[in-house]
Amino acid sequence: MSPDEFRAAGREVVEWVASYLERIETFPVLSRVAPGDIRRRLPAHPPQSGEASDGFASRLLADVDGAVLPGITHWQHPSFFGYFPANASGPAMLGDLLASGLGVQGMSWITSPACTELEQVVVDWLADLLGLPAGWHADGPGGGVIQDTASTATFTAVLAALHRASDGRTATEGVGSGRYAVYTSIEAHSAGIKAARMAGLGSAAVRQIEVDAKDFAMSVPALAQALAADRAADVTPAIIIATVGTTSTTAIDPIRAIGTLAREHGVWLHVDAAYAGVAAVCPELRWILDGVGEFADSMCTNPHKWLLTNFDCDVFWVADRTALTGALSVLPEFLRNAATDSGAVVDYRDWHPQLGRRFRALKLWAVLRWYGADGLQAHIRRHVELAQAFASWVRDDARFVLVAPHPLSLVCFRVAGDDDAADRLTSALLDALNAGGRLFVTHTRVGGRMTIRLAIGGLLTTGQHVRDAWRDIQEAADSILTA
Amino acid sequence: MSPDEFRAAGREVVEWVASYLERIETFPVLSRVAPGDIRRRLPAHPPQSGEASDGFASRLLADVDGAVLPGITHWQHPSFFGYFPANASGPAMLGDLLASGLGVQGMSWITSPACTELEQVVVDWLADLLGLPAGWHADGPGGGVIQDTASTATFTAVLAALHRASDGRTATEGVGSGRYAVYTSIEAHSAGIKAARMAGLGSAAVRQIEVDAKDFAMSVPALAQALAADRAADVTPAIIIATVGTTSTTAIDPIRAIGTLAREHGVWLHVDAAYAGVAAVCPELRWILDGVGEFADSMCTNPHKWLLTNFDCDVFWVADRTALTGALSVLPEFLRNAATDSGAVVDYRDWHPQLGRRFRALKLWAVLRWYGADGLQAHIRRHVELAQAFASWVRDDARFVLVAPHPLSLVCFRVAGDDDAADRLTSALLDALNAGGRLFVTHTRVGGRMTIRLAIGGLLTTGQHVRDAWRDIQEAADSILTA
Repeated sequence: MSPDEFRAAGREVVEWVASYLERIETFPVLSRVAPGDIRRRLPAHPPQSGEASDGFASRLLADVDGAVLPGITHWQHPSFFGYFPANASGPAMLGDLLASGLGVQGMSWITSPACTELEQVVVDWLADLLGLPAGWHADGPGGGVIQDTASTATFTAVLAALHRASDGRTATEGVGSGRYAVYTSIEAHSAGIKAARMAGLGSAAVRQIEVDAKDFAMSVPALAQALAADRAADVTPAIIIATVGTTSTTAIDPIRAIGTLAREHGVWLHVDAAYAGVAAVCPELRWILDGVGEFADSMCTNPHKWLLTNFDCDVFWVADRTALTGALSVLPEFLRNAATDSGAVVDYRDWHPQLGRRFRALKLWAVLRWYGADGLQAHIRRHVELAQAFASWVRDDARFVLVAPHPLSLVCFRVAGDDDAADRLTSALLDALNAGGRLFVTHTRVGGRMTIRLAIGGLLTTGQHVRDAWRDIQEAADSILTA
Repeated sequence: MSPDEFRAAGREVVEWVASYLERIETFPVLSRVAPGDIRRRLPAHPPQSGEASDGFASRLLADVDGAVLPGITHWQHPSFFGYFPANASGPAMLGDLLASGLGVQGMSWITSPACTELEQVVVDWLADLLGLPAGWHADGPGGGVIQDTASTATFTAVLAALHRASDGRTATEGVGSGRYAVYTSIEAHSAGIKAARMAGLGSAAVRQIEVDAKDFAMSVPALAQALAADRAADVTPAIIIATVGTTSTTAIDPIRAIGTLAREHGVWLHVDAAYAGVAAVCPELRWILDGVGEFADSMCTNPHKWLLTNFDCDVFWVADRTALTGALSVLPEFLRNAATDSGAVVDYRDWHPQLGRRFRALKLWAVLRWYGADGLQAHIRRHVELAQAFASWVRDDARFVLVAPHPLSLVCFRVAGDDDAADRLTSALLDALNAGGRLFVTHTRVGGRMTIRLAIGGLLTTGQHVRDAWRDIQEAADSILTA
């Protein structure tokens, strides 16, 4: 494809994206296809002759319309309230397109110094915006890196923690059996268990600590007990994975108290703030990270969730990068170069499991510049306000109960009643809402009970969309709860 | 950014990319900045007020020109001969822009069925194009998935292999100590050692098998010996990581013979064909994968290297997906849904370490359609022919020696002479070439000797660029070798 062909085709795709965002509300939020429907719309075999010609983009886009869009669950739809949001903003798309166009691979500083240094700058900027310590900057003992997901960040933290706990022996000898333990709450993300399994510890090494019955935050006494029990059994506590904003309910673990324990026991403290961390751009919400700067050894948060930067973009910081690079650095001859050997540069390949890396800093740079601190704060505040309004409507309707605190933009609620019948009604309500196509919500279980999660955070979501959602919920309840 | 603002800004960025590709030969291939130069060009702090306005894209692009481009090592430059290529083609960029615009996250089938099913279709297409077995298709016992990098694919293979070797016990109990071994050649990629470390085995579990002195392929007798020694020591051989196209020299391990041993010992065979695998789109090169379909339990290859699909795009296949999903599946309540519970769909989150995933199939789809089998073959053949021509020029110049077979598009050569002086002259030649700015080559060590790697494979690389490279090499040799 020549530059001129790319000019023409690129304009067509830009137009398609703009137009998709304009007509996004015409689609059912949740895709309605059955398994296999999309595959059946596509040729079983690759083409022998290419389609290279002027009409390529038009044909490709027609097939996206005809064969792909029916199988899309529209994450950018303003009434997508499922999971957590995955904001895709205009400036992020521009930055990502630049990354595609430059086509550089930033595994080492030398393979494109700007890919490393712009990343250092933007993750430092984000650290400033969230009120994180200066020591976490690139010129401190720590530093940040863009990874793909919080799952990878959590796994990376486990590897660094094992390296530190073993004085580096895990790199050569492995983890052994029964020697290390990982602590996280029963409400924490499954990424913690997956990380322990991938790191060779197995799920049996994970201590799922009980939570407070009211706010679903990790119980500090229970954690203390688990640490002491492991010590007594000659098991080394390697890492505590605390959560700021759990996936189920946005519960916030007491980082300061946990951190005090972590320090006492010399255990690595990783803070998984995948969804919620970015909310700290608002000074009035910065309390969610209380204790993090003082006690955490690492933390991650996902601009690709609630901070307007297209997937994938997780930012992972360490307070001290020694154990991180100790765990992950392998330097074969074919990657050696004078800059690396000088020690004067950071080679980000030693900061994550992958070797190759895309120039993801461009999209975060574009976002932070387009919005600025003011714009990011306005973005977060708008959703928090909408969530508080929605929660108040739920609270005032006797047919529902709020099941967890909702300090941010997720509201968890269910049909009133503490029995299986309430579970069934809540499930029926969820299914009816999603089948309607006007909105999409997902579920969790809280205290064992089926619970609907309404996560606000879409770039296009307005007060009207939240009011419409509440109207749909009430109408569905009218029909289901009186049946 | 409104859709109209995105239209205008998107057109500007498309124009910038097209123009960048037109003027790419005006830049020195290897960036000339010193450590810290790029950071110093950028503001130390994030902006308080955003830059949201009509002129945003122009300002952003001006800063890319002024602050970023000096720090770019131009991977798309036609005289970039370092590492392996990282092809970024027009159709791939269009597909990637569509992925950004749709902004879906395909962790589960339900979160966008098309994101899973289009991926199944295009990885099946690629399997067909490479002559891989029908059983590796989505409707067979195996299947393919797009991952980010071959490092991740190799790591994933190690996890699946451990799961199978332990009858699933590693998922709960971990890997224990001293119980499992990993086999790979001394010429294999460092990703194998990194994977063993990350999986909790430690580098001591890796047996780096000797290679044949002439073609640098894994020695089968040495492998047999290592397997027997481990069995005798009650260590379980878990996985053999064989390579088709090593990073140093594109050596091709004897897959059929290794596979026979693997089957005899019940060991998982993973084939790392990151760079070379895609060459099998050409029937006359399909011999490189001889034995893979019959014996391999998994294989990966990177369309983001030599097959025109922007980073990141590694395709990883398994012959049987049971151990893969057994090793990686963790299903928390908040991810449950009727489609997953039915077992009728594939949830790709269980096929890699990450949970979230981008819609990467779009870019591979666009590439396979634009080029077709014919176009992909022409792309590979052109580079193989250029490499053979280059190798013949080196062979005819008594000042140089070719140090390894060059069946594909990488040529390894060094200054003649088997002593440290030859190493120093080869290094001096490498440095002089890269300092000149007209081309970029990297190095390795082969048989302990400093060696220059010239990897052909750029989308824009023509015969003239390769002839120019040879002229530069000869001129540098004239100056250095006679000094």
